[in-house]
Amino acid sequence: MKIALNLAKKGLGYVSPNPCVGAVVVDRQGDIISKGYHRFYGGPHAEVYALKHLDKKQAKDATLYVTLEPCNHFGKTPPCTELIIEKGIKNVVVGILDPNPIVNGTGIKRLKESGINVTTGVLEDLLSKFYKPFNKYITKKIPFVTLKVAQSLDGKNAVKYGNKYLVSEKTLKFVHRLRFESDAIMVGINTILSDNPKLNIRYGHKKPLLKVVLDTNGRMPENAEIYNTEGKVLIYTTNKKFKKKHDNEEVCYVDKAGMYCDILQVLNDLGKRGIQNLLIEGGGTLSFELIKSKVVDRLVLIITPYVIGGNKFLSFDGEGFLSLKEAFKVEDYWLKKIDKDLILVSDLI
Amino acid sequence: MKIALNLAKKGLGYVSPNPCVGAVVVDRQGDIISKGYHRFYGGPHAEVYALKHLDKKQAKDATLYVTLEPCNHFGKTPPCTELIIEKGIKNVVVGILDPNPIVNGTGIKRLKESGINVTTGVLEDLLSKFYKPFNKYITKKIPFVTLKVAQSLDGKNAVKYGNKYLVSEKTLKFVHRLRFESDAIMVGINTILSDNPKLNIRYGHKKPLLKVVLDTNGRMPENAEIYNTEGKVLIYTTNKKFKKKHDNEEVCYVDKAGMYCDILQVLNDLGKRGIQNLLIEGGGTLSFELIKSKVVDRLVLIITPYVIGGNKFLSFDGEGFLSLKEAFKVEDYWLKKIDKDLILVSDLI
Repeated sequence: MKIALNLAKKGLGYVSPNPCVGAVVVDRQGDIISKGYHRFYGGPHAEVYALKHLDKKQAKDATLYVTLEPCNHFGKTPPCTELIIEKGIKNVVVGILDPNPIVNGTGIKRLKESGINVTTGVLEDLLSKFYKPFNKYITKKIPFVTLKVAQSLDGKNAVKYGNKYLVSEKTLKFVHRLRFESDAIMVGINTILSDNPKLNIRYGHKKPLLKVVLDTNGRMPENAEIYNTEGKVLIYTTNKKFKKKHDNEEVCYVDKAGMYCDILQVLNDLGKRGIQNLLIEGGGTLSFELIKSKVVDRLVLIITPYVIGGNKFLSFDGEGFLSLKEAFKVEDYWLKKIDKDLILVSDLI
Repeated sequence: MKIALNLAKKGLGYVSPNPCVGAVVVDRQGDIISKGYHRFYGGPHAEVYALKHLDKKQAKDATLYVTLEPCNHFGKTPPCTELIIEKGIKNVVVGILDPNPIVNGTGIKRLKESGINVTTGVLEDLLSKFYKPFNKYITKKIPFVTLKVAQSLDGKNAVKYGNKYLVSEKTLKFVHRLRFESDAIMVGINTILSDNPKLNIRYGHKKPLLKVVLDTNGRMPENAEIYNTEGKVLIYTTNKKFKKKHDNEEVCYVDKAGMYCDILQVLNDLGKRGIQNLLIEGGGTLSFELIKSKVVDRLVLIITPYVIGGNKFLSFDGEGFLSLKEAFKVEDYWLKKIDKDLILVSDLI
């Protein structure tokens, strides 16, 4: 199942909003005879790759390991359950049930009714973590929100002059991989105005990203860099006078909630657009607002080895929490060190 | 030697400004037959404890392991070299040379001249790290400066209302152990005015600490809590009109350097007073000034699992560095997790 999970991960960044799935076929001796994973959105499922070259004789004694319950409905592809039955596979080990209401349990039911031995709940902890974004998207219809913040040891996210990257080159690659594994990247208008970022993927695997700007008052400059990089620009604003000025731009009007765009409305709209993984690279104001609104599902805090001091460029700014009781507390996190940068990742759901 | 080092550590907080030393005597079979460590300032050295009960027969074939070069001069106690020679020890393994100019190499020389086999430089990396404070104090006559900062994930060191401790109970014990291993604790006047701390040791082993306040303009309130706890209060100020008001208080006038007390003058004075380990629990202004002045030898940054936001209670405040080139960069650090708090320790010398 671990091998199947590692195969599934190869689909990250390619298959969304489908789930990443990996499958492994093992013979009676426990040797792997076939493998597969879901490679691109709308393409064949992992089971198809794993089973297509097997003959009946091989399949008879084999066990299929698959990270997610096989589908039992006609979507963009025919149901995998039928392929498994047709091939004559006798044992199926399923990581976790598909949270998708149109599958949830019915795939397993169909296999069992055909006389196949089905085991479920293998490597469940790791797999539930892995499928969190898909799970949230498929059950709540809104994206899984990852907030990425890069800061100095003392919580400053920039300096006044010179090189704007606090993170090391290697960490930058990690950040661009995070971008690749996302479907859309979002920033606040302040980040556009102060950094004028490209918001594209410049290291490793590349693809066009949907670039989203929260621009409450419609201050987006016509010549911002993000209009010149691959992928569409989507502006959320409450200012009806703000109009689209580029071919690769869409403007979406939302209501105000407090001082800013209603973030729940924005997330609902992004969900409708099929955005499963939303990466937010927030400046201090946006990051604080998001944490306060409790819409962040995963916090990726990159702590770089600088002390910057001063009272500007705060990584979490805004009005601030006034007591520890009110403050946001990370309950659990894991750490990764890249060069001298420390990456703290915490899942909040 | 590792056992000897662990013995030496038992003296932390007790022997300063003497060095912590541990000694182990091993027989021909490699079994430990005797151990000792330096227990209190002015008391018998580690070698005395380790050797005093040995008879000539035991000593003849034994090897003495000692973390620091044995002394060869009359200080508060007679020279350890003579005791080693007198006991008839034939093999001595020395961790590192005593940086003290009145010892440095002479102890080893004396032992060798007496026909003893001497090995040096064992566990040198660990021991040089361990003896950094003693080394600095004995060669430069100023204290080893540890700056301790406790902050939220986003670099805030307090909240406006309620419980003032960001750190967990277990981390608080770690902090009080840090205090115990120090000879003096220092804060800035802003910390006194905003937190009114006790600055004593309330967990684990206890002892009176010298409590030092940097109070450039002489704003120290007469009823501050630190006057009511064990240990002397020492105020550094540039305001000659500020006078001592308590029996357990001393006021020391220093010059201004920039906007604040001249920190080098302060450290020199503390060195003269025999302070080897100075712990500074800085607020945002003091912490930044100390980092900027490059007087910090060890940074202990406690990162607690909160996001507080806002633009107040900054862990490093002041004017701030304007570029990354100018900013302070931690070159190496080690991490320790206590509950959900992350302790980052970096030696800057």
